Amino acid sequence: MRSVSIVGAGLTRFSEHWSLSFKELIAEAGVKAIHDSGLARKDIQAVYGGCMASGRFIGQEHIGALIADQLGLNPIPATRLEAACASGGVALRNGYMAVASGMHDIVAVGGIEKMTEVSTEDAGFALGGAGDQETELFMGASFPALYALMARAHMQKFGTTEEQLAAVAVKNHKNAEHNEYAQFRNEITIDQVMNSGYIASPLKLLDCSPISDGAAAVILCAADVAKKMKMADKAVEIIASAQTSDTLALAQRKNLWETASAKIAAEQAYKQAGIKPSDVSFAEVHDCFTIAEIMAIEALGFCKQGEGGKFTEQGNTRIGGKIPVNTSGGLKACGHPVGATGIKQAIEAYWQLNNMAGKRQVKGAEIGLTHNVGGSGATAVIHLYRKM
Amino acid sequence: MRSVSIVGAGLTRFSEHWSLSFKELIAEAGVKAIHDSGLARKDIQAVYGGCMASGRFIGQEHIGALIADQLGLNPIPATRLEAACASGGVALRNGYMAVASGMHDIVAVGGIEKMTEVSTEDAGFALGGAGDQETELFMGASFPALYALMARAHMQKFGTTEEQLAAVAVKNHKNAEHNEYAQFRNEITIDQVMNSGYIASPLKLLDCSPISDGAAAVILCAADVAKKMKMADKAVEIIASAQTSDTLALAQRKNLWETASAKIAAEQAYKQAGIKPSDVSFAEVHDCFTIAEIMAIEALGFCKQGEGGKFTEQGNTRIGGKIPVNTSGGLKACGHPVGATGIKQAIEAYWQLNNMAGKRQVKGAEIGLTHNVGGSGATAVIHLYRKM
Repeated sequence: MRSVSIVGAGLTRFSEHWSLSFKELIAEAGVKAIHDSGLARKDIQAVYGGCMASGRFIGQEHIGALIADQLGLNPIPATRLEAACASGGVALRNGYMAVASGMHDIVAVGGIEKMTEVSTEDAGFALGGAGDQETELFMGASFPALYALMARAHMQKFGTTEEQLAAVAVKNHKNAEHNEYAQFRNEITIDQVMNSGYIASPLKLLDCSPISDGAAAVILCAADVAKKMKMADKAVEIIASAQTSDTLALAQRKNLWETASAKIAAEQAYKQAGIKPSDVSFAEVHDCFTIAEIMAIEALGFCKQGEGGKFTEQGNTRIGGKIPVNTSGGLKACGHPVGATGIKQAIEAYWQLNNMAGKRQVKGAEIGLTHNVGGSGATAVIHLYRKM
Repeated sequence: MRSVSIVGAGLTRFSEHWSLSFKELIAEAGVKAIHDSGLARKDIQAVYGGCMASGRFIGQEHIGALIADQLGLNPIPATRLEAACASGGVALRNGYMAVASGMHDIVAVGGIEKMTEVSTEDAGFALGGAGDQETELFMGASFPALYALMARAHMQKFGTTEEQLAAVAVKNHKNAEHNEYAQFRNEITIDQVMNSGYIASPLKLLDCSPISDGAAAVILCAADVAKKMKMADKAVEIIASAQTSDTLALAQRKNLWETASAKIAAEQAYKQAGIKPSDVSFAEVHDCFTIAEIMAIEALGFCKQGEGGKFTEQGNTRIGGKIPVNTSGGLKACGHPVGATGIKQAIEAYWQLNNMAGKRQVKGAEIGLTHNVGGSGATAVIHLYRKM
């Protein structure tokens, strides 16, 4: 397997895009990424696109071909990957594999979701398809309800408090203030989160990531090709790629207070890269709900099992803290256009490692980690990155 | 890249399965495939699943994780691929790549669709998501209408007749009679096709593939591992894998009377395998409509451009003819559970090359070809197979 690098990135703002279509979002992110790489369209040999539920959101499938068409890349192979909220991460992994294997030298990997074309109720129902519809969605268990069960289990076992959950949202909003691509750039307070009204107790409105539109794209290149083509300046190497699965339904899991899939994927990723959790300079993790970030930092080994709440409350995951988490603002504040999220995480890593993250820059960042989760943890994808 | 073989296959009957759920269909095909390979579940290192529109058909996404869960394969990576009606072929290609690259030794690849849970009208709308919803589906152009346009163009340019289209359906029904997994096992006549009523002129009811439920699965293995593990008896090598894209909307194509994507993919596949069209012993092609089979055999080089109708009418594509096409009964008579079709094609190749196709066996079969198309040709996937 060859070394693979990100050599270009393009992102739309994550927002409610009432005046941009699905196709226009793809075009914006894709063209920016190609331009950033300094390559021409003809150099791209394959497309991998992550998208969760375009059929439900806009009545469109065949998203791989649509992306290639929209960017004028025909007749190269174009493939859509779906793994619910981890669709972007899985697309990245398949693009990585395509280059690492030697099948292709240069590929484009994108992620997209346009969620605001349907009612909030219909969007909730579409998102419920990430879990087990038969035993969860159709029985009334929405996604906030599933994560609320995990939060309750975590609180009961470890004494995690609602204020500690709120601290995740407050930090991520603070980070998003300095991200021009973020959906919410306003600071919030613990009190505001605590008084924002229950969605599914103990999770309140400001514990939840929003409904968003957005697209993200990166160009991947074999390291030796990047050097030959003089694209190595900004190249960020993907030093590990791990993906795991767990039961679709939450009720089938051994514990509700941990994400076993992420724990296993993290072990694999650290082993591949030959590093340990304390070597990671910053991480973008899947905070679809505040409890998810707490379970993520525990699964990733940044703190001990059960101490994620306290660890966050003490400021360890802030920029400038022990291990900055979600410098982009995370899903909570940067927004969560489902299929785009996994790619946006990789772009934040690319920017941080190139010292391009402006006021949210992590000083001396050497190794980045992204953690993308599908459903209530039935898919986990973890990547590690290092400046070449 | 390593040599990759199919070492096991499992198929459900393609039918309207009123008493089997999506999950049960997956379990049946998956367990059969694992059993056929002689492997244990613990030997499988990753899952790739093709599915087009489960969100629209049954309100369920996250199909990769669902498959792994249903077969008890956690925590291995499990990924869903979507490329409309070519979802199965694209899943096969990604599974092939995962093994060829050395990332995995043994993977399971499946395809699934459960289409009868919604009304025929809703199914038609879901299938329309394979084309360009903005300029086709939402403007009233259903999939039969798009293929009718291609049929008209072919008739006008080359003098293809409605009777020649009908000959495709008659042959495929005849083949399906001997396939216990086929949806329609009744012989039909040219007259019956001609009198079956227009769906979108010139295409009549019996020119169209049906709405179906079904699942299909194969186990892929690195050739050297297969030999070591003594699974080589029935191993069928995948000697080429090619995938291409074209514009999503039919109106953007250069010609309506050919599938350019399939032509390019065929050239690539023949080159990879170092063979020519006349070396192929049999082919499973994507006859979602009868005109599609005629365009397929032209794109694959089995006859000259424009002569597919005559070539079929003369019996060249029958079992015993020059190049037997769709011995399984094709999409027309075996059925077309969209995501499963590409894998079913590979299984027919596996059975034919192992001399296991019973009364529909192609004598002396040496090289098989499968041709899987998404939408009106925006994706084409071609694989070639040879007995190891």
